[in-house]
Amino acid sequence: MRNIKVIMSYRGTAYHGFQRQENAVAVQNVVEDALSELLGSEITVIGCSRTDTGVHANEFHLNFFTDCCIPCDNLVRGINNLLPDDIAFLSAGDVPEEFHSRFDCKGKEYIYLIDNSVIRNVFASGLALHYPYPLDVNELDRAAKHFVGTHDFTSLCGTANLKDNCIRTIFSCDVIKNKNMVKVIVNGDGFLYNMIRIIAGTLIYVAENKIPASGIPVILEGKDRRKAGKTAPAHGLYLNKVYY
Amino acid sequence: MRNIKVIMSYRGTAYHGFQRQENAVAVQNVVEDALSELLGSEITVIGCSRTDTGVHANEFHLNFFTDCCIPCDNLVRGINNLLPDDIAFLSAGDVPEEFHSRFDCKGKEYIYLIDNSVIRNVFASGLALHYPYPLDVNELDRAAKHFVGTHDFTSLCGTANLKDNCIRTIFSCDVIKNKNMVKVIVNGDGFLYNMIRIIAGTLIYVAENKIPASGIPVILEGKDRRKAGKTAPAHGLYLNKVYY
Repeated sequence: MRNIKVIMSYRGTAYHGFQRQENAVAVQNVVEDALSELLGSEITVIGCSRTDTGVHANEFHLNFFTDCCIPCDNLVRGINNLLPDDIAFLSAGDVPEEFHSRFDCKGKEYIYLIDNSVIRNVFASGLALHYPYPLDVNELDRAAKHFVGTHDFTSLCGTANLKDNCIRTIFSCDVIKNKNMVKVIVNGDGFLYNMIRIIAGTLIYVAENKIPASGIPVILEGKDRRKAGKTAPAHGLYLNKVYY
Repeated sequence: MRNIKVIMSYRGTAYHGFQRQENAVAVQNVVEDALSELLGSEITVIGCSRTDTGVHANEFHLNFFTDCCIPCDNLVRGINNLLPDDIAFLSAGDVPEEFHSRFDCKGKEYIYLIDNSVIRNVFASGLALHYPYPLDVNELDRAAKHFVGTHDFTSLCGTANLKDNCIRTIFSCDVIKNKNMVKVIVNGDGFLYNMIRIIAGTLIYVAENKIPASGIPVILEGKDRRKAGKTAPAHGLYLNKVYY
């Protein structure tokens, strides 16, 4: 039995997240249907992560088992002819049978993209949060550094449950600007539900002087979701890298 | 009576071109409805150009007449709250009463965008033609230079009619590459129906060695649409600048 690992990208606008849904179209439904058609047997894929409705992936990893002997390059070419324009396999390769896309994941990088044009960029709609007010990128970057390290991120979890372990390690958190596009880039060993979107929303609170940059440690210590900013919309979020 | 000139941008994916349609939604329908709602009286706009279904505009100019005394900055802010995310007014200003967006236009710049990634960029779908095979940009640029000048462009007109005057002047025609994105940039005093899309399709014929770069003058002299390349799809085309 071969275990094949795939790196793919998708624009999430049309999908109810990655994970297979019964009554809605998720990326997993579309990918499994295409793989099953290409390989002639029913395929179930293991994704590296769930993503929310509307979230995008520059790089999403998955693996699946098959008896099929198709070379990986042919698999990529073949599947891309069956997939819709908003999903593409970037590469595929054989991996050891014990490899598991989710359990073996050592960390991920997410990007939250903000269109900081005064007037919205019509080509970024659905692909970035439009925020037309001034953003002091240096101040936001200073604020972002307070998220780095091993912390209890209860305050930044969409569905915090006191029984859950909300301790995660953020390796880096940077805010950069290129023309009118602001990127919040977060690397970590794992993320709670909506955590990156709440980090983005909290940085926007800093931009709006609702919270000083130095207030972020206080938010973390408070372990109370209500102390952090709003959850920023899904359509600005990209899964960018996955580490194994 | 004020005559107000507007520069706007739109992503054409959802629209049946710019020009008002009876049984389909065109950009003009949406803009006129929003202006009429904002200004409280029925507004008809004069566009600088028709564009085809799916064609985009980085910069589209229009003008309209109104008795309303709204300052132009407020007009821009107000209308952008009423317009959908894929249409935006960039600026507006009062112009002399005799100004006409179409008749006074001295020239335009179009860009044809090609995603030359081997595997499609999912974020460029609907926004660029995906062409996965090698493109020799220097060779295409040399070929493009043959379009420059005053020529009879009958061979590059989608609906050539022998009675029409098909003489136009192309000021510049350049092919450049930035990462995997190839741009064909064409400046001219006016363009025939589908002319830029046929220029792009003809350059792709050059890339595929169906036509040598030096064969372009022969195509122009032939005055026969069948000698040129295919009409490239609408979704790669952008109206980029309008000159007055």
